[in-house]
Amino acid sequence: MAIVSGGLDSTTLAYWLRRHANGLTILSVDYGQRHRKELQFARATARVLDAAHHTADLASLGALLGGSALTDTAVAVPNGHYTDASMAITVVPNRNALLLDVAVGLATVLGADTVAFGAHGGDHAVYPDCRPEFLAAYQQMVTVAGAGFLPDGFQVIAPFMAMTKTDIVALANRLAVPADSTWSCYRGGDLHCGTCGTCVERREAFALAGVADPTRYADATDAGRVG
Amino acid sequence: MAIVSGGLDSTTLAYWLRRHANGLTILSVDYGQRHRKELQFARATARVLDAAHHTADLASLGALLGGSALTDTAVAVPNGHYTDASMAITVVPNRNALLLDVAVGLATVLGADTVAFGAHGGDHAVYPDCRPEFLAAYQQMVTVAGAGFLPDGFQVIAPFMAMTKTDIVALANRLAVPADSTWSCYRGGDLHCGTCGTCVERREAFALAGVADPTRYADATDAGRVG
Repeated sequence: MAIVSGGLDSTTLAYWLRRHANGLTILSVDYGQRHRKELQFARATARVLDAAHHTADLASLGALLGGSALTDTAVAVPNGHYTDASMAITVVPNRNALLLDVAVGLATVLGADTVAFGAHGGDHAVYPDCRPEFLAAYQQMVTVAGAGFLPDGFQVIAPFMAMTKTDIVALANRLAVPADSTWSCYRGGDLHCGTCGTCVERREAFALAGVADPTRYADATDAGRVG
Repeated sequence: MAIVSGGLDSTTLAYWLRRHANGLTILSVDYGQRHRKELQFARATARVLDAAHHTADLASLGALLGGSALTDTAVAVPNGHYTDASMAITVVPNRNALLLDVAVGLATVLGADTVAFGAHGGDHAVYPDCRPEFLAAYQQMVTVAGAGFLPDGFQVIAPFMAMTKTDIVALANRLAVPADSTWSCYRGGDLHCGTCGTCVERREAFALAGVADPTRYADATDAGRVG
């Protein structure tokens, strides 16, 4: 089972698992993110990959845990690079543990022996719950929490943990992932804005990987890119 | 902050924290449990204790993670003792990690330095996510997940971890917790049924503690109690 937001990383993860795993179930989570249009992209990816798709509705948590620019429309999404200190405002407290817990619960019900998520090296600076030490601690916790109930050989994996965003763009290119069928922008407008942290990171990764970026950005100037 | 279901254990926890902590916030979680009437009891306890009360609405997860007798009305709640093997059907996969993750997220937003939950010794046989090793693994995970974001001195505690249900009834009695203002029954009818696992456990604990049980049971016979 893959947790797929509809972004480039997790969509690439789904394409990768399609090749390397038996069967594929895709789980998306509506946590009240303002860029929830990404969920449509996740659904479309599931269709293309002939994978079962489930969406967990945690939207009401967005209000409860409000205060992040990702869920509270009263808080502005900052411009700048994804790894800037200013991006701390885009942290939804404890988000990944929550998403993984839902995935582990569903995997237990469905008998799926693997939960995969798309955390990568570029996430580490801002998001502690994307770091290798988080993955290790989460694996330990969930093994204890589910003792006697988890499917045989159950594991939580993050295959891109040691990769950069640029590595992922290169991999996506090799796997023929249709990058224009993925959504990154935190602002969730008609087009990718081109200036929020995740747009800047996306543009930079395509440039560094030497892969043509099919994404249409509202602001594609360099001023936008370096924020 | 205390996670309070409205049951006897967590209500006693709230009364205990009222004496031993500065300030008290109560979090309840609607996870689609058929006995969600317990949530009304949690709200009432918050009013009595003059505590802020939040309810996290995860009801849609009940459908997604269906298959437990606690959330799927197509699955019968078994009679019997709370620690019987037959009670495995009342396990909601990965429930406590989910509830704690919501609480930790909210505590982060509110700046609360403690999250307390009411797991106790009697929970251990059926529910792995109530055991001391779960608490330790969870504490480790959440410390890593929230590095840089958690309030200073943040901790997750389960003060009743080494106590039996009987010990908790005795403590509730000392703290003058109005036991008839708590709800245990998994069936969620007008009265406590008296025969499901948690009713049987409740009745037994009052008897063993030598405390008069104010609860009205639909079936209060011994046949009901021993299941």
